[in-house]
Amino acid sequence: MPDNALAPLYLDDLSVGQRFLSGTFTLSEDCLKGFARAYDPQPFHLDDIAARATLFGGLAASGWQTAAITMKLLVEGASQLAGGIIGAGAEIRWPRPTRAGDTLQVESEVVRIIAPRARPRQGVVVMRNRTRNQDREIVQVMTARLIVFSRS
Amino acid sequence: MPDNALAPLYLDDLSVGQRFLSGTFTLSEDCLKGFARAYDPQPFHLDDIAARATLFGGLAASGWQTAAITMKLLVEGASQLAGGIIGAGAEIRWPRPTRAGDTLQVESEVVRIIAPRARPRQGVVVMRNRTRNQDREIVQVMTARLIVFSRS
Repeated sequence: MPDNALAPLYLDDLSVGQRFLSGTFTLSEDCLKGFARAYDPQPFHLDDIAARATLFGGLAASGWQTAAITMKLLVEGASQLAGGIIGAGAEIRWPRPTRAGDTLQVESEVVRIIAPRARPRQGVVVMRNRTRNQDREIVQVMTARLIVFSRS
Repeated sequence: MPDNALAPLYLDDLSVGQRFLSGTFTLSEDCLKGFARAYDPQPFHLDDIAARATLFGGLAASGWQTAAITMKLLVEGASQLAGGIIGAGAEIRWPRPTRAGDTLQVESEVVRIIAPRARPRQGVVVMRNRTRNQDREIVQVMTARLIVFSRS
Protein backbone atom coordinates (compact mmCIF):
# COMPACT_ATOMS: atom_id res chain seq x y z
CA MET A 1 0.00 0.00 0.00
CA PRO A 2 1.23 3.50 -0.69
CA ASP A 3 2.51 5.20 2.43
CA ASN A 4 0.99 8.67 2.57
CA ALA A 5 2.93 10.14 5.44
CA LEU A 6 2.34 13.70 6.59
CA ALA A 7 5.38 14.40 8.75
CA PRO A 8 8.57 15.43 6.90
CA LEU A 9 10.63 12.41 5.98
CA TYR A 10 14.31 12.02 6.77
CA LEU A 11 16.80 9.55 5.33
CA ASP A 12 16.24 7.47 8.48
CA ASP A 13 12.52 7.12 7.62
CA LEU A 14 13.00 5.71 4.13
CA SER A 15 13.42 2.09 3.10
CA VAL A 16 13.67 0.31 -0.24
CA GLY A 17 10.26 -0.66 -1.55
CA GLN A 18 8.40 2.17 0.20
CA ARG A 19 5.72 3.74 -2.02
CA PHE A 20 3.93 7.07 -2.18
CA LEU A 21 0.93 8.14 -4.22
CA SER A 22 0.47 11.77 -5.28
CA GLY A 23 -2.66 13.81 -5.83
CA THR A 24 -3.86 14.45 -9.37
CA PHE A 25 -3.48 17.24 -11.92
CA THR A 26 -5.63 17.78 -15.00
CA LEU A 27 -3.84 19.45 -17.92
CA SER A 28 -6.02 21.90 -19.83
CA GLU A 29 -5.39 22.57 -23.52
CA ASP A 30 -4.59 26.22 -22.68
CA CYS A 31 -1.98 25.18 -20.14
CA LEU A 32 -0.51 22.64 -22.59
CA LYS A 33 -0.17 25.27 -25.33
CA GLY A 34 1.06 27.94 -22.91
CA PHE A 35 3.97 25.78 -21.81
CA ALA A 36 4.74 24.92 -25.43
CA ARG A 37 4.77 28.57 -26.49
CA ALA A 38 7.21 29.40 -23.69
CA TYR A 39 9.52 26.39 -23.83
CA ASP A 40 8.83 23.93 -26.64
CA PRO A 41 7.26 25.74 -29.62
CA GLN A 42 6.84 22.85 -32.03
CA PRO A 43 3.73 22.22 -34.19
CA PHE A 44 2.72 18.98 -32.41
CA HIS A 45 2.55 20.90 -29.10
CA LEU A 46 0.81 24.01 -30.48
CA ASP A 47 -1.52 23.20 -33.35
CA ASP A 48 -4.20 20.50 -33.22
CA ILE A 49 -4.43 20.14 -36.99
CA ALA A 50 -0.71 20.17 -37.76
CA ALA A 51 -0.16 17.65 -34.95
CA ARG A 52 -2.29 15.01 -36.70
CA ALA A 53 0.28 14.57 -39.48
CA THR A 54 3.13 13.99 -37.01
CA LEU A 55 4.42 10.98 -35.09
CA PHE A 56 2.14 12.04 -32.21
CA GLY A 57 -1.03 11.73 -34.30
CA GLY A 58 -2.58 14.70 -32.48
CA LEU A 59 -1.86 17.47 -30.03
CA ALA A 60 0.62 16.29 -27.36
CA ALA A 61 2.17 17.96 -24.33
CA SER A 62 5.88 18.63 -24.26
CA GLY A 63 7.64 15.84 -22.38
CA TRP A 64 9.22 18.57 -20.25
CA GLN A 65 5.75 19.70 -19.19
CA THR A 66 4.94 16.12 -18.16
CA ALA A 67 8.17 16.25 -16.12
CA ALA A 68 7.22 19.62 -14.60
CA ILE A 69 3.71 18.44 -13.68
CA THR A 70 5.25 15.32 -12.13
CA MET A 71 7.46 17.59 -10.02
CA LYS A 72 4.44 19.64 -8.94
CA LEU A 73 2.63 16.48 -7.87
CA LEU A 74 5.71 15.27 -5.97
CA VAL A 75 6.20 18.61 -4.20
CA GLU A 76 2.54 18.79 -3.20
CA GLY A 77 2.34 15.06 -2.54
CA ALA A 78 2.78 12.62 0.24
CA SER A 79 6.52 12.09 0.34
CA GLN A 80 7.36 15.39 2.00
CA LEU A 81 11.11 15.15 2.38
CA ALA A 82 12.69 17.23 5.11
CA GLY A 83 14.61 19.99 3.34
CA GLY A 84 12.54 19.59 0.18
CA ILE A 85 12.88 17.57 -3.01
CA ILE A 86 16.39 18.25 -4.27
CA GLY A 87 17.35 16.31 -7.37
CA ALA A 88 20.94 15.79 -8.41
CA GLY A 89 19.85 14.17 -11.63
CA ALA A 90 17.36 11.86 -13.27
CA GLU A 91 16.67 9.39 -16.03
CA ILE A 92 13.45 10.00 -17.85
CA ARG A 93 11.46 8.33 -20.58
CA TRP A 94 8.11 9.01 -22.16
CA PRO A 95 6.40 5.79 -23.37
CA ARG A 96 3.40 7.82 -24.63
CA PRO A 97 2.51 11.50 -24.74
CA THR A 98 0.33 13.42 -22.30
CA ARG A 99 -2.76 14.81 -24.06
CA ALA A 100 -4.92 17.87 -23.37
CA GLY A 101 -7.50 16.94 -20.74
CA ASP A 102 -5.41 14.14 -19.25
CA THR A 103 -5.43 13.76 -15.48
CA LEU A 104 -2.01 12.74 -14.19
CA GLN A 105 -0.99 11.03 -10.96
CA VAL A 106 2.42 9.88 -9.77
CA GLU A 107 3.37 6.74 -7.91
CA SER A 108 6.83 6.84 -6.39
CA GLU A 109 8.93 3.97 -5.09
CA VAL A 110 12.21 4.02 -3.20
CA VAL A 111 14.51 1.76 -5.24
CA ARG A 112 17.89 2.41 -3.63
CA ILE A 113 19.38 4.25 -0.67
CA ILE A 114 23.00 5.33 -0.68
CA ALA A 115 24.06 6.58 2.74
CA PRO A 116 27.81 7.10 2.71
CA ARG A 117 29.54 6.89 6.09
CA ALA A 118 31.71 9.85 5.20
CA ARG A 119 28.67 12.17 5.07
CA PRO A 120 26.31 10.98 7.78
CA ARG A 121 24.17 14.15 7.52
CA GLN A 122 22.87 13.32 4.05
CA GLY A 123 22.44 10.51 1.58
CA VAL A 124 21.17 9.85 -1.90
CA VAL A 125 17.81 8.18 -2.42
CA VAL A 126 16.96 6.77 -5.83
CA MET A 127 13.22 7.18 -6.38
CA ARG A 128 11.32 5.77 -9.35
CA ASN A 129 8.33 7.95 -10.25
CA ARG A 130 5.72 6.57 -12.61
CA THR A 131 3.31 9.14 -14.00
CA ARG A 132 0.01 7.72 -15.23
CA ASN A 133 -2.97 9.20 -17.05
CA GLN A 134 -6.63 8.61 -16.15
CA ASP A 135 -6.57 5.30 -18.07
CA ARG A 136 -3.63 4.11 -15.91
CA GLU A 137 -1.34 4.28 -18.94
CA ILE A 138 2.22 5.30 -18.10
CA VAL A 139 3.16 8.62 -19.74
CA GLN A 140 6.51 8.99 -17.96
CA VAL A 141 8.97 6.99 -15.90
CA MET A 142 11.43 9.24 -14.13
CA THR A 143 14.08 7.77 -11.86
CA ALA A 144 15.59 10.54 -9.77
CA ARG A 145 18.61 10.75 -7.50
CA LEU A 146 17.50 12.84 -4.54
CA ILE A 147 19.59 14.39 -1.81
CA VAL A 148 17.94 13.52 1.50
CA PHE A 149 19.00 14.66 4.97
CA SER A 150 19.44 12.56 8.08
CA ARG A 151 17.43 13.33 11.20
CA SER A 152 20.53 13.70 13.36
CA MET B 1 33.60 24.21 -34.81
CA PRO B 2 29.88 24.05 -34.15
CA ASP B 3 27.93 23.37 -37.28
CA ASN B 4 25.09 25.88 -37.47
CA ALA B 5 23.09 24.47 -40.33
CA LEU B 6 19.89 26.13 -41.51
CA ALA B 7 18.30 23.43 -43.67
CA PRO B 8 16.32 20.75 -41.79
CA LEU B 9 18.54 17.86 -40.83
CA TYR B 10 17.75 14.23 -41.60
CA LEU B 11 19.30 11.10 -40.13
CA ASP B 12 21.47 10.97 -43.27
CA ASP B 13 22.96 14.39 -42.43
CA LEU B 14 24.12 13.52 -38.92
CA SER B 15 27.43 12.00 -37.86
CA VAL B 16 29.02 11.23 -34.50
CA GLY B 17 31.02 14.19 -33.20
CA GLN B 18 28.92 16.82 -35.00
CA ARG B 19 28.26 19.86 -32.80
CA PHE B 20 25.66 22.61 -32.69
CA LEU B 21 25.58 25.81 -30.67
CA SER B 22 22.27 27.40 -29.63
CA GLY B 23 21.32 31.01 -29.13
CA THR B 24 21.07 32.39 -25.59
CA PHE B 25 18.28 32.92 -23.07
CA THR B 26 18.42 35.15 -20.00
CA LEU B 27 16.28 34.00 -17.08
CA SER B 28 14.61 36.84 -15.19
CA GLU B 29 13.77 36.49 -11.51
CA ASP B 30 10.05 36.87 -12.38
CA CYS B 31 10.23 34.04 -14.89
CA LEU B 32 12.16 31.85 -12.41
CA LYS B 33 9.54 32.38 -9.68
CA GLY B 34 6.63 32.04 -12.11
CA PHE B 35 7.79 28.58 -13.19
CA ALA B 36 8.35 27.60 -9.55
CA ARG B 37 4.85 28.74 -8.52
CA ALA B 38 3.33 26.65 -11.33
CA TYR B 39 5.46 23.51 -11.13
CA ASP B 40 8.00 23.43 -8.31
CA PRO B 41 6.76 25.51 -5.35
CA GLN B 42 9.63 25.01 -2.92
CA PRO B 43 11.18 27.80 -0.79
CA PHE B 44 14.59 27.71 -2.54
CA HIS B 45 12.84 28.47 -5.86
CA LEU B 46 10.42 31.10 -4.52
CA ASP B 47 11.92 33.07 -1.65
CA ASP B 48 15.32 34.77 -1.79
CA ILE B 49 15.71 34.91 2.00
CA ALA B 50 14.51 31.39 2.78
CA ALA B 51 16.73 30.05 -0.01
CA ARG B 52 19.89 31.26 1.76
CA ALA B 53 19.51 28.70 4.55
CA THR B 54 19.17 25.79 2.10
CA LEU B 55 21.63 23.62 0.22
CA PHE B 56 21.37 26.08 -2.69
CA GLY B 57 22.65 29.03 -0.62
CA GLY B 58 20.31 31.40 -2.46
CA LEU B 59 17.45 31.57 -4.93
CA ALA B 60 17.82 28.84 -7.58
CA ALA B 61 15.76 27.88 -10.62
CA SER B 62 13.95 24.55 -10.68
CA GLY B 63 16.07 22.00 -12.52
CA TRP B 64 12.99 21.34 -14.67
CA GLN B 65 13.02 24.97 -15.75
CA THR B 66 16.67 24.62 -16.76
CA ALA B 67 15.55 21.58 -18.77
CA ALA B 68 12.65 23.52 -20.33
CA ILE B 69 14.88 26.47 -21.27
CA THR B 70 17.37 24.02 -22.78
CA MET B 71 14.53 22.61 -24.89
CA LYS B 72 13.53 26.12 -26.01
CA LEU B 73 17.11 26.85 -27.06
CA LEU B 74 17.30 23.53 -28.94
CA VAL B 75 13.99 24.09 -30.73
CA GLU B 76 14.98 27.61 -31.77
CA GLY B 77 18.59 26.64 -32.38
CA ALA B 78 20.78 25.44 -35.16
CA SER B 79 20.13 21.72 -35.23
CA GLN B 80 16.72 21.93 -36.91
CA LEU B 81 15.76 18.30 -37.26
CA ALA B 82 13.31 17.42 -40.00
CA GLY B 83 10.08 16.49 -38.23
CA GLY B 84 11.11 18.35 -35.07
CA ILE B 85 12.89 17.43 -31.87
CA ILE B 86 11.13 14.32 -30.59
CA GLY B 87 12.66 12.82 -27.46
CA ALA B 88 12.02 9.24 -26.41
CA GLY B 89 13.89 9.80 -23.18
CA ALA B 90 16.85 11.45 -21.53
CA GLU B 91 19.40 11.34 -18.77
CA ILE B 92 19.82 14.61 -16.96
CA ARG B 93 22.03 15.99 -14.24
CA TRP B 94 22.41 19.41 -12.70
CA PRO B 95 25.98 20.03 -11.47
CA ARG B 96 25.00 23.51 -10.23
CA PRO B 97 21.79 25.53 -10.17
CA THR B 98 20.66 28.18 -12.63
CA ARG B 99 20.30 31.56 -10.90
CA ALA B 100 18.07 34.56 -11.62
CA GLY B 101 19.78 36.71 -14.26
CA ASP B 102 21.79 33.83 -15.71
CA THR B 103 22.19 33.71 -19.49
CA LEU B 104 22.08 30.13 -20.74
CA GLN B 105 23.42 28.60 -23.95
CA VAL B 106 23.44 24.98 -25.11
CA GLU B 107 26.13 23.10 -26.94
CA SER B 108 24.95 19.82 -28.46
CA GLU B 109 27.03 16.93 -29.72
CA VAL B 110 25.95 13.81 -31.59
CA VAL B 111 27.37 10.94 -29.51
CA ARG B 112 25.69 7.91 -31.09
CA ILE B 113 23.51 7.05 -34.06
CA ILE B 114 21.33 3.94 -34.03
CA ALA B 115 19.83 3.28 -37.46
CA PRO B 116 18.14 -0.11 -37.38
CA ARG B 117 17.82 -1.87 -40.74
CA ALA B 118 14.32 -2.96 -39.84
CA ARG B 119 13.07 0.65 -39.77
CA PRO B 120 14.94 2.50 -42.50
CA ARG B 121 12.62 5.52 -42.27
CA GLN B 122 13.80 6.53 -38.82
CA GLY B 123 16.60 6.08 -36.33
CA VAL B 124 17.61 7.13 -32.85
CA VAL B 125 20.25 9.79 -32.36
CA VAL B 126 21.85 10.18 -28.94
CA MET B 127 22.61 13.86 -28.42
CA ARG B 128 24.53 15.24 -25.44
CA ASN B 129 23.39 18.76 -24.59
CA ARG B 130 25.53 20.84 -22.23
CA THR B 131 23.83 23.95 -20.88
CA ARG B 132 26.22 26.63 -19.65
CA ASN B 133 25.74 29.95 -17.87
CA GLN B 134 27.44 33.24 -18.78
CA ASP B 135 30.56 32.16 -16.85
CA ARG B 136 30.79 28.99 -18.98
CA GLU B 137 29.88 26.88 -15.94
CA ILE B 138 27.80 23.82 -16.76
CA VAL B 139 24.36 23.96 -15.13
CA GLN B 140 22.96 20.90 -16.90
CA VAL B 141 24.09 17.92 -18.93
CA MET B 142 21.18 16.26 -20.70
CA THR B 143 21.75 13.27 -22.95
CA ALA B 144 18.67 12.68 -25.05
CA ARG B 145 17.53 9.87 -27.29
CA LEU B 146 15.92 11.57 -30.27
CA ILE B 147 13.80 10.03 -33.00
CA VAL B 148 15.17 11.31 -36.33
CA PHE B 149 13.75 10.62 -39.79
CA SER B 150 15.65 9.52 -42.87
CA ARG B 151 15.54 11.65 -46.02
CA SER B 152 14.23 8.81 -48.15
